[in-house]
Amino acid sequence: MFTLLQPDPNSAARLGRLTLAHGVVETPCFMAVGTQGTVKCMTPDEMRALGAQIILSNTYHLNLRPGIEVIRAAGGLHRFMGWDRPILTDSGGYQVFSLAKLRKLTDDGVEFQSHIDGARCFLGPREVMEIQHVLGSDIAMVLDECPHYPCDRETACKAVERSLTWAARCREEAARIGLSGKLFGIAQGSVYDDLRRLCAERLLPMGFDGYAIGGLSVGEPDEELFRVVEATAAVLPRNQPRYAMGLGTPRQIVELVARGVDMFDCALPTRVGRNGTAFTRRGTQSARVAAWKDDPRPVEEGCACYCCRHYSRAYVRHLFNAGEILGLRLLTWHNLHVYLQLMRDVRAAIAAGTFADFRHEFVTNYRVNNPEGKQIDV
Amino acid sequence: MFTLLQPDPNSAARLGRLTLAHGVVETPCFMAVGTQGTVKCMTPDEMRALGAQIILSNTYHLNLRPGIEVIRAAGGLHRFMGWDRPILTDSGGYQVFSLAKLRKLTDDGVEFQSHIDGARCFLGPREVMEIQHVLGSDIAMVLDECPHYPCDRETACKAVERSLTWAARCREEAARIGLSGKLFGIAQGSVYDDLRRLCAERLLPMGFDGYAIGGLSVGEPDEELFRVVEATAAVLPRNQPRYAMGLGTPRQIVELVARGVDMFDCALPTRVGRNGTAFTRRGTQSARVAAWKDDPRPVEEGCACYCCRHYSRAYVRHLFNAGEILGLRLLTWHNLHVYLQLMRDVRAAIAAGTFADFRHEFVTNYRVNNPEGKQIDV
Repeated sequence: MFTLLQPDPNSAARLGRLTLAHGVVETPCFMAVGTQGTVKCMTPDEMRALGAQIILSNTYHLNLRPGIEVIRAAGGLHRFMGWDRPILTDSGGYQVFSLAKLRKLTDDGVEFQSHIDGARCFLGPREVMEIQHVLGSDIAMVLDECPHYPCDRETACKAVERSLTWAARCREEAARIGLSGKLFGIAQGSVYDDLRRLCAERLLPMGFDGYAIGGLSVGEPDEELFRVVEATAAVLPRNQPRYAMGLGTPRQIVELVARGVDMFDCALPTRVGRNGTAFTRRGTQSARVAAWKDDPRPVEEGCACYCCRHYSRAYVRHLFNAGEILGLRLLTWHNLHVYLQLMRDVRAAIAAGTFADFRHEFVTNYRVNNPEGKQIDV
Repeated sequence: MFTLLQPDPNSAARLGRLTLAHGVVETPCFMAVGTQGTVKCMTPDEMRALGAQIILSNTYHLNLRPGIEVIRAAGGLHRFMGWDRPILTDSGGYQVFSLAKLRKLTDDGVEFQSHIDGARCFLGPREVMEIQHVLGSDIAMVLDECPHYPCDRETACKAVERSLTWAARCREEAARIGLSGKLFGIAQGSVYDDLRRLCAERLLPMGFDGYAIGGLSVGEPDEELFRVVEATAAVLPRNQPRYAMGLGTPRQIVELVARGVDMFDCALPTRVGRNGTAFTRRGTQSARVAAWKDDPRPVEEGCACYCCRHYSRAYVRHLFNAGEILGLRLLTWHNLHVYLQLMRDVRAAIAAGTFADFRHEFVTNYRVNNPEGKQIDV
């Protein structure tokens, strides 16, 4: 399912191609987040127009609402939401540990209370495989335990062991039910390089279609993030895809591509857009600044997105000040374009053998500019 | 600017055509409401795809935010919001009386406090003409005084006198500044037929391009609404357009077309859509009903709108339950389609000489179905 097309001679970056049930995905790729069966504010048509080749959706959320039987009745998630290209679904592990009220954690799975209505729920290896099978995910993820940050070594060890137990059971369960999609394992291990490597090495014999690095972006500094990803990627097979879960800022993505990561997903472009902040190739910019009051220029000069081709900064600022939904739509659109265009540029640079220059220039020019002082680390 | 193409032999309905600076509008027409320089949830491209030929925007709101200087700098409202077809703007009169905290009312105009930040503002005939001139409205409206309902005869009389004074001053002011768009007068008179007629008759010598019936839909029963519109329309010139402001439900629109009205505007399709209720040709329907849980059918069977061509009731219900913006977008889209398609059908029926049958069938089949008991009179 993964073809390694071209490794970068000056870094661990790679150009590749995923061949999935619903289409082909060029890597390195970014997956927009469609938590509840919709990329927030966007239609599937608009996502196609943006050039999105794959999106992510969430087992945890969809299982709680609308419930798996509704999606089964619709003939799967693709038909339910009207998206005919690939979908990766996470297993729900991360959401159980971040959103739900935890009840009980055993090798069989995790009992928790729904963050929506407090209902008691259970997710174990069997459940997450069955649910993702019904969803019809092109790529399903194993259940894993995501420790918080900071995390002592003993807690990290235990999470690794539990994640490995669950991974093995997910593998068996997937075989038993004839899982329709591909299945990725997830390496945990917090910020401990040796635990990360150990976890990855013990996942390999289970024979997954790809390998994710999970439990990242939970508060660790960039140096630790980059170091553990590099350490983990080093032991992962060259001919299989690597996915850094829940990441990241444009700068982080470029740095992680350089460390051998092929796949990314992140809520930042959509969430930050709805909050009124634009990503640009040179950093972030609030749409509410007084300087935009009558600025006739597009949000980002030279940008080819729908927002920038049609609307001024003055208009976008007005929409946010007036609380108009079109404002959320336009910055979501722009931000997703920035992310997807970044991945196109990254791929073009690897293909052209100029990724080292691209990386240097991008990282040098990218700055965080958040005039309103919001707590967004972008 | 108005061509009367074909009167209906069995009612006061008329087929017509408005020729405006930014394009041609077939009448009877419905104008979607874009209060703050955007039809809520929609892009101008989507409005064009829906076949909208004209939209309405609000002088009161745009003058407060973003402020008229911002729109002047953008080159007018059309360029600011990216809409190249006709725009009608109201004068702000209705909003001053319904939204703002009123301070002082004189023949010179009205002093009030902004509903946004409490700032003191003044709108008089001169101001509303200047503002609409800067906006570049295809059709501007005179300033009028809108009494509440119920309204005693003396109060209604005073509002008529004040509105006539302001109308005359607006006419003078428009001539003085060379108003770029057409100018409509507004007949007031509450539910008193003779006051309505009197007001209309005194407007006529002022020589407006069209005539609106204002101060409607403020709580009066349908019988009173229909009666005063009929009484007013009877004295308006046959060869000029007639506009019933702020109306209405699909049933009201069909009934008012039969009484000779050519133009309508109403926030219902967009507002009700955002609240999770769909208009259909046979009545309204909440998207949150349990019966839609796994219903694979479109919101309205046989509907050609984007929502109904692509999504199931189950999906639309899920989007509303999950609080997703795409839900607001899809029902807004659908409801605007229902309204605009209704007007196309009305025009086709008048053209075919079958409007009487159309009206009878539509009104007979249309029912209000609001399972959640919300206070929406649709």
